[in-house]
Amino acid sequence: MMNILYVAPGLGVLALIYTWVRSGWVSRQDAGDDRMKTIAGYIADGAIAFLKAEYKVMVLFALIASAFLFYLGSTGEKSSPIIVVAFLIGAVFSALAGFIGMKIATKANVRTAQAARTSLAKALNVSFSGGSVMGMGVAGLAVLGLGSLFIVFYQIFVVSKGGSANGVEMETALEVLTGFSLGAESIALFARVGGGIYTKAADVGADLVGKVEAGIPEDDPRNPATIADNVGDNVGDVAGMGADLFGSYVATILATMVLGREVVAAGDQFNGLSPILLPMVIAGVGIVASLIGILMVRVKEGGDVQAALNFGNYVSVAISAVAAFFIIRWMLPAGDLVIGRAGAIPFTSMDVFYAVVVGLVVGTLMSIITEYYTAMGKRPVLSIVKQSSTGHATTVIGGLAVGMESTVLPILVLAAGIVLSFRFAGLYGVAIAAAGMMATTAMQLAIDAFGPIADNAGGIAEMSELPKEVRERTDILDAVGNTTAATGKGFAIASAALTSLALFAAFMGTANISVIDISHADVLAGLFVGGMIPFIFSGLAISAVGRAAMAMVQEVRRQFREIPGIMEGTGRPEYEKCVAISTQAAIREMMLPGAIALVVPVIVGFTMGPEVLGGLLAGVTVSGVLMAIFQSNAGGAWDNAKKSFEKGVMIDGVMQYKGSEAHKASVTGDTVGDPFKDTSGPSMNILIKLMSIVSLVIAPHIAVPDRGMAQVETFRQKLSVEAPAQTITPRPAVVKTMPTATVARR
Amino acid sequence: MMNILYVAPGLGVLALIYTWVRSGWVSRQDAGDDRMKTIAGYIADGAIAFLKAEYKVMVLFALIASAFLFYLGSTGEKSSPIIVVAFLIGAVFSALAGFIGMKIATKANVRTAQAARTSLAKALNVSFSGGSVMGMGVAGLAVLGLGSLFIVFYQIFVVSKGGSANGVEMETALEVLTGFSLGAESIALFARVGGGIYTKAADVGADLVGKVEAGIPEDDPRNPATIADNVGDNVGDVAGMGADLFGSYVATILATMVLGREVVAAGDQFNGLSPILLPMVIAGVGIVASLIGILMVRVKEGGDVQAALNFGNYVSVAISAVAAFFIIRWMLPAGDLVIGRAGAIPFTSMDVFYAVVVGLVVGTLMSIITEYYTAMGKRPVLSIVKQSSTGHATTVIGGLAVGMESTVLPILVLAAGIVLSFRFAGLYGVAIAAAGMMATTAMQLAIDAFGPIADNAGGIAEMSELPKEVRERTDILDAVGNTTAATGKGFAIASAALTSLALFAAFMGTANISVIDISHADVLAGLFVGGMIPFIFSGLAISAVGRAAMAMVQEVRRQFREIPGIMEGTGRPEYEKCVAISTQAAIREMMLPGAIALVVPVIVGFTMGPEVLGGLLAGVTVSGVLMAIFQSNAGGAWDNAKKSFEKGVMIDGVMQYKGSEAHKASVTGDTVGDPFKDTSGPSMNILIKLMSIVSLVIAPHIAVPDRGMAQVETFRQKLSVEAPAQTITPRPAVVKTMPTATVARR
Repeated sequence: MMNILYVAPGLGVLALIYTWVRSGWVSRQDAGDDRMKTIAGYIADGAIAFLKAEYKVMVLFALIASAFLFYLGSTGEKSSPIIVVAFLIGAVFSALAGFIGMKIATKANVRTAQAARTSLAKALNVSFSGGSVMGMGVAGLAVLGLGSLFIVFYQIFVVSKGGSANGVEMETALEVLTGFSLGAESIALFARVGGGIYTKAADVGADLVGKVEAGIPEDDPRNPATIADNVGDNVGDVAGMGADLFGSYVATILATMVLGREVVAAGDQFNGLSPILLPMVIAGVGIVASLIGILMVRVKEGGDVQAALNFGNYVSVAISAVAAFFIIRWMLPAGDLVIGRAGAIPFTSMDVFYAVVVGLVVGTLMSIITEYYTAMGKRPVLSIVKQSSTGHATTVIGGLAVGMESTVLPILVLAAGIVLSFRFAGLYGVAIAAAGMMATTAMQLAIDAFGPIADNAGGIAEMSELPKEVRERTDILDAVGNTTAATGKGFAIASAALTSLALFAAFMGTANISVIDISHADVLAGLFVGGMIPFIFSGLAISAVGRAAMAMVQEVRRQFREIPGIMEGTGRPEYEKCVAISTQAAIREMMLPGAIALVVPVIVGFTMGPEVLGGLLAGVTVSGVLMAIFQSNAGGAWDNAKKSFEKGVMIDGVMQYKGSEAHKASVTGDTVGDPFKDTSGPSMNILIKLMSIVSLVIAPHIAVPDRGMAQVETFRQKLSVEAPAQTITPRPAVVKTMPTATVARR
Repeated sequence: MMNILYVAPGLGVLALIYTWVRSGWVSRQDAGDDRMKTIAGYIADGAIAFLKAEYKVMVLFALIASAFLFYLGSTGEKSSPIIVVAFLIGAVFSALAGFIGMKIATKANVRTAQAARTSLAKALNVSFSGGSVMGMGVAGLAVLGLGSLFIVFYQIFVVSKGGSANGVEMETALEVLTGFSLGAESIALFARVGGGIYTKAADVGADLVGKVEAGIPEDDPRNPATIADNVGDNVGDVAGMGADLFGSYVATILATMVLGREVVAAGDQFNGLSPILLPMVIAGVGIVASLIGILMVRVKEGGDVQAALNFGNYVSVAISAVAAFFIIRWMLPAGDLVIGRAGAIPFTSMDVFYAVVVGLVVGTLMSIITEYYTAMGKRPVLSIVKQSSTGHATTVIGGLAVGMESTVLPILVLAAGIVLSFRFAGLYGVAIAAAGMMATTAMQLAIDAFGPIADNAGGIAEMSELPKEVRERTDILDAVGNTTAATGKGFAIASAALTSLALFAAFMGTANISVIDISHADVLAGLFVGGMIPFIFSGLAISAVGRAAMAMVQEVRRQFREIPGIMEGTGRPEYEKCVAISTQAAIREMMLPGAIALVVPVIVGFTMGPEVLGGLLAGVTVSGVLMAIFQSNAGGAWDNAKKSFEKGVMIDGVMQYKGSEAHKASVTGDTVGDPFKDTSGPSMNILIKLMSIVSLVIAPHIAVPDRGMAQVETFRQKLSVEAPAQTITPRPAVVKTMPTATVARR
């Protein structure tokens, strides 16, 4: 029956086969005329140039991190130097996922433009296929990597040493596996934070010199920074988002596995492995559900693209939920489970299923709320539009207020999700809720990546002067892409938040602490310092955009000066240099914030102990989630307030269009919002996850003496000796109805 | 020996005598010529009009709150309906302090302008005397009120029932005394939040119609909103700041008293009252120290005003520290003290003194850091100035980044303060550190209130066309006033933060909880929701300014249309109507945020219990302090970036002045910063304190069954029976050197 180990990696391989086949299909589509091919070629070359430059620095980083991990793995009791292997594979897989995404996005964009010559249905098919390649690639690599490594580490650390699923041997195996997640999230740091700085630096730099100084239009191929600007869109929206979700996906599965070690399932037919393997199997089945959903996305000419995407999404969510029900009933047969930590409550397999449902609902609600706060024509964006008529300052104030107000509903949803999933199944419930939410990651990413592909397709159509109906079709796709970008951000924040909480729970388990008491002064101080970190991180990221843009300006000025014939179109601008400048500036600028995320938990953990580190993590997570929502939504709302003027909007009974004073004010808002929504806001996701993962990695080295697992071991033995699943007494009603476990514990 | 009860109220009376005498002296100064008197009269009338309108609404609020408190006091075991009396006295005293401050500020402004005709020394003397009346009035009323009520409640609840200083009778007495603090802080809500909305609404409203539509200059008496604008400066900077510090001052003393009940001092000669009375005696002596410092503030013509103020301040801080040393040695004789809650450590009287020193240092550092981030010519403001040259958006981005970065040092100082004061004397140490910091409140407020008086004096001198050298002298005072405004804000934030922590500690004691465990899902959810509240509060306050300004615009337009001869200067504008409009709009707009602050703790406390409420408070405090620093410093930095252009500033080798494009961009930054630094930022202080006080008031009603006090009682009896102070074993060294108490507890 141990074939269950192979279910997840097998389904990962299935996803990769889809990726390979679908990618081939996209490549075989018509890439249009020469002009289209030339423009698309520049973008594709730029993307590769970006990846090359990025990978060079990554290698250096990976070497330093590996040395530290090797030292840590060699000295710790429950660790192993093999963690370096897991780390490197995680990094390589994450980088590979980014490579696949960038590659397919830069192929699909021009082919979508060409397909739009034929029909909307075909254009959607090409662009969404591109997105689905990215989504399936990420999910497939994640599940294959985690699943295969687990098989290997299970053999090395547990089976060969005769350990049990709940024992210290398994603890070591999972600790080593954490390296995979650390590798993945480290690459996400480069992709999301560096990429965020990159894309806005290129954007601002290209505008300042090209439009303002040289007087050439936007997206003009004579501007050396134009390609960097277009590459930036792919870097931020495709690779950045992909790495972010790859990291969340891996981390939630891993955190649930770590917590699963402390869960004992009555009647477990998989040698005690069921609670550990469950999140991976759910992820695997989520891939199948996503695949079915992806195949459902179809639209007729004149049809509703958004409805088609929503239908596919809901299908995959529904299938995941139903599948999760049967998987849980199969892997965790009826009867009580127990979790070993103090303060935990016993729960049944149905409770685990309910927690999964909570996760699915939280993810869906977060997307819907985000859309409301950033959508054109809704109250929040309209309030900014109205304030644009009284100038730059009121536009900015309006957006800041909207961003702040938009934190309420997501936080209430998140808080309810935490409370409910914990009530159902303790900390394991919180983690499995996150895993449930992430089950359809492949589908979410397919929808997310479709947006920038359609956006780029529109740009290429414009630059290549394709007929008007082509542009109209790509505009329809682009408009939908704007909405999916907003909902995708909401989903990414929710996933980062739940992932961090799952990691937080896993950290507590691994560090052997069962209480993080903020009435203790050190812990409270940790909470304050933790809460401050997202502020300084955001501040640094925002200032970085300004400085990086200045570096780009210098380079473009140099090329205009030194390359003969550049303004006449006879001299080819050195696009790669701009791409490299932007990349290097981005990587240089992300060093300090990145170092904060990586080093602070290590210092605090080793000097102040795990409880203070726990306080720090709680502060980072709460403040980080708030700053993510605030900044992303303010930025998104400003963006659509500006777009409202492009369409024309009614203010106090007068229609206002592009070029009006109010529109100029809205452009200021949009520019303020750019680093908010594309740099500092999304960076928060990485910050809170990365600090949690680093803490989890060092947890065994700062752990207090073990106590809790002895209880689990006793209970496990008792179960296997005395009682088959069916005879275990059902959980007493009092446990289910008590108002809070807190009160009961006192 | 029970005369000690009368020390604090006696010193409070001394402060009020100073207030009365000095106020008379200020009134007897020359108020200048008729034109000056007329303008000053409008402002004074407006201030009274504001207070009248505000008091009407306050009475209604006080009635509703009293009804709720009466119900609560009648039903609880450890409470009494008499809490209503304490609440009303607190509200009246706070309102009275505001009245005194407004009255003296609107007298001193014009007399300062007149004094500046003679010399700088005389102008400083008049303006600083005005400030000192405010400072001494606030401190005197606070100490007199708290001290007298304590004497009464001690008689009613403790002496007459034969209770002890540590018993449940004292708990009831202190609980009832909490009403005083609640009353004071509720008025602060009106003064600080309502006042903050008021002042910016009047400012923006006056500018939009006056300068833009009617084309008349700023501060023109023909503009009906001008007086409201000038009143607003007093409302925000004098009354708002005064009420804020009055609330902090009262709350820290009270919180320390509440925690003092759990401290048993060996060899206590005051019937066990010493730890309870200590904060009040320190406050009383701080009044004397402030008085000496105030008398030290003198300057010669051409002298350094800032240095004179600093000298006076440092004198009062130093005297307070020395006096605190002797008071502590006297009231808490050598030997170990003990605190009764689980996890607490024994400490000596010297430890208590060290905690007081920590508080004094934290307050001073916070002021210095705030000044650095908002001062002209320093790196943060210069970075914004530089970004002004590339437009509105980069100016805004630069200020936001500065605000975010400016959170780092204050949070590290605060965290260090928490950890150190707790190491010295547990939660009592944290509270007494806050009390130590607040000891020189009278001096701080004297310096704070001097700023707006000097500012108004300059305005009156300008409008009355006084000679150039007069304006030059008031300009010197005004420039110093800008600096003291910044440092005052830093001090106010630090005081609010430490006050909230002291209240937090007192809340835990009163609610009988010794652990707030954020690894428990409900508490973690509370932390998230708490963290979100400062965001929604800020968002609402910021939007309120916009809406209230619009209401003002309507009223000014109406007066221009309906009052004959208004533009020719023959018809008198209805200033009171504008003041009333602004006041009512402010009060209407603060209803929702105010209700959140008052109602959320009650709902969460009664439905989820004290531990979740504790998590909520921690979230509010951390996030509120961060948002306060972020918003206040961003606003202050934008303001001084704009002012840099008025003086002339070098950007990339070119001098830039008022009227340049960069200056226009800096005006946008300043306008965005206005509600940040004068409305939402300072409101955070009230929010975090008010939610903590409300929680403390309801704490006995949601408390879990008592356990901790039994230990204290046992220990106290043991002390008084067995051991004189000197024979108690010194605290073992291990307690002092252990890295964290956390580890020891496990």
